[in-house]
Amino acid sequence: MEIQNLETISITNKTIQKVNGSEIAILEDVLSIEEPLEIRLKYIQDNEVCNQVISVTMRTPGNDVELAIGFLFTEGIISNYEAIQEIYHVEKNCALQKKNSIQVILNDGFIPHLLQSDRNFYTSSSCGVCGKSSIESIKTVSPFQNTNKRCFDISASVLYQLPKKLRTAQSDFANTGGIHASGLFSLDGELLLLQEDVGRHNALDKLIGNAFAKGLLPLNQHILLLSGRISFELVQKAAMAGISIVVAMGAPSSLAVELAQEFDMTLLGFLNENRFNIYHSATTITLLTEKEQALIPN
Amino acid sequence: MEIQNLETISITNKTIQKVNGSEIAILEDVLSIEEPLEIRLKYIQDNEVCNQVISVTMRTPGNDVELAIGFLFTEGIISNYEAIQEIYHVEKNCALQKKNSIQVILNDGFIPHLLQSDRNFYTSSSCGVCGKSSIESIKTVSPFQNTNKRCFDISASVLYQLPKKLRTAQSDFANTGGIHASGLFSLDGELLLLQEDVGRHNALDKLIGNAFAKGLLPLNQHILLLSGRISFELVQKAAMAGISIVVAMGAPSSLAVELAQEFDMTLLGFLNENRFNIYHSATTITLLTEKEQALIPN
Repeated sequence: MEIQNLETISITNKTIQKVNGSEIAILEDVLSIEEPLEIRLKYIQDNEVCNQVISVTMRTPGNDVELAIGFLFTEGIISNYEAIQEIYHVEKNCALQKKNSIQVILNDGFIPHLLQSDRNFYTSSSCGVCGKSSIESIKTVSPFQNTNKRCFDISASVLYQLPKKLRTAQSDFANTGGIHASGLFSLDGELLLLQEDVGRHNALDKLIGNAFAKGLLPLNQHILLLSGRISFELVQKAAMAGISIVVAMGAPSSLAVELAQEFDMTLLGFLNENRFNIYHSATTITLLTEKEQALIPN
Repeated sequence: MEIQNLETISITNKTIQKVNGSEIAILEDVLSIEEPLEIRLKYIQDNEVCNQVISVTMRTPGNDVELAIGFLFTEGIISNYEAIQEIYHVEKNCALQKKNSIQVILNDGFIPHLLQSDRNFYTSSSCGVCGKSSIESIKTVSPFQNTNKRCFDISASVLYQLPKKLRTAQSDFANTGGIHASGLFSLDGELLLLQEDVGRHNALDKLIGNAFAKGLLPLNQHILLLSGRISFELVQKAAMAGISIVVAMGAPSSLAVELAQEFDMTLLGFLNENRFNIYHSATTITLLTEKEQALIPN
């Protein structure tokens, strides 16, 4: 079988505000696209045709055929390339015409090893596999989407101090360089909670689990700082906890920004000690320096 | 319910070789621990007791109770903290006495919202949830574990050039800063394949899928370069493809190193233009500089 990939777009432009010190500039930025891909597998077993969704993964569109083949092989589901009869994108009911479902058909006589290999598969939701529907499905389960409203300002000078505060408080990061952190800060920059994990979604689940158990939700008067990049999954978890300001040291994906817009969450990326990017702002961000702020009469 | 976490260890020591230019030093390094956590959920529905594994995630041990609570909440499975009656670690048949299974019991009258929220759950394997058993299960499905043997040297001066070659070839990375790359190189440092994705496991699946479709497996005369950190999952995928040298710009987890040792794969981390760490070596790595090498008569 010849591999024939669709022509795809893997990046998208977005107008953002770039903050540097106390300066702000509006410019065109480029985001990596993140969209779900559903992998469907059709085969014949005991004279019956089986067709099942075996994975939904968040991916950047492009080389979807190789992605499906590689997933089937590296997860031990198929071991011979001859097992594959055909692979093609399936049209789904997606108003945005996104190609987010791929069908793999196995040749007669090839049975996928699904029991051995279901160690870490995503199962599929009934809500479809277009990024838009992923966002809609979160709206239906999020308990705090209407309590997210902000009535506060945050200060850039407070933001600039957060990465150092997180690093100072981290126990493992400096040692191993191999761990993600999630930190919860008050609006004036006090570190309230910190969790670490090799998996960034786990670090955030640990943090939100702690706050949930303490009855602190919704976290709509707080800043969440993420040590790495911002995926859809992380914004989704933040949205569930009613967090209204998400700040990261890394870049967001396209779908992370879309979800933040939909929930009107403030989403900042590439934060360091003197700059950050604003991908969506639902908060007044004060850009005065500490010195300038000190000059303002109360 | 009071949260009572186990005393856990989240980092582990390992003796490694640190290569800097053409110098080598042996020292104690610290790795973040990565181990599977199984989350089991018990509840009563229609007068029947249900007890099912709803997730297996690779995590760093510590704050497992919060992790389970946070996962249940952020994935929309429970919405009230009062739903939780009890949470405790379950003893499993693990010779290493690892606490990798946690049981959540819901109070009567609380039904988990499992259908809405199964968007991205891991399903459980039958092979247990100790890191050791994860490794054993990969041994049973890996088609190339005995063909992994190397009969070649690699040169440090070749390795030092790989990050720049990868970055130069990357289309999106420089633009968005938000994408992972997997690159396949020949032993003398020629870039043969490059794939990018917001998900690092997807970038590697795309790469291996491409090589698999071209009949190039096992990739045991190649170097795989990963742009980020090295998790268990990435080494597992590399092992499936018979890749014998895995090199990353970031840190490996404990379980990634254990798997590399078990498969006798060369695993290098923290690679940049003049240094790297050797976590496991199954290859002769030549440390001469290019200049010194040029002086050797053929």
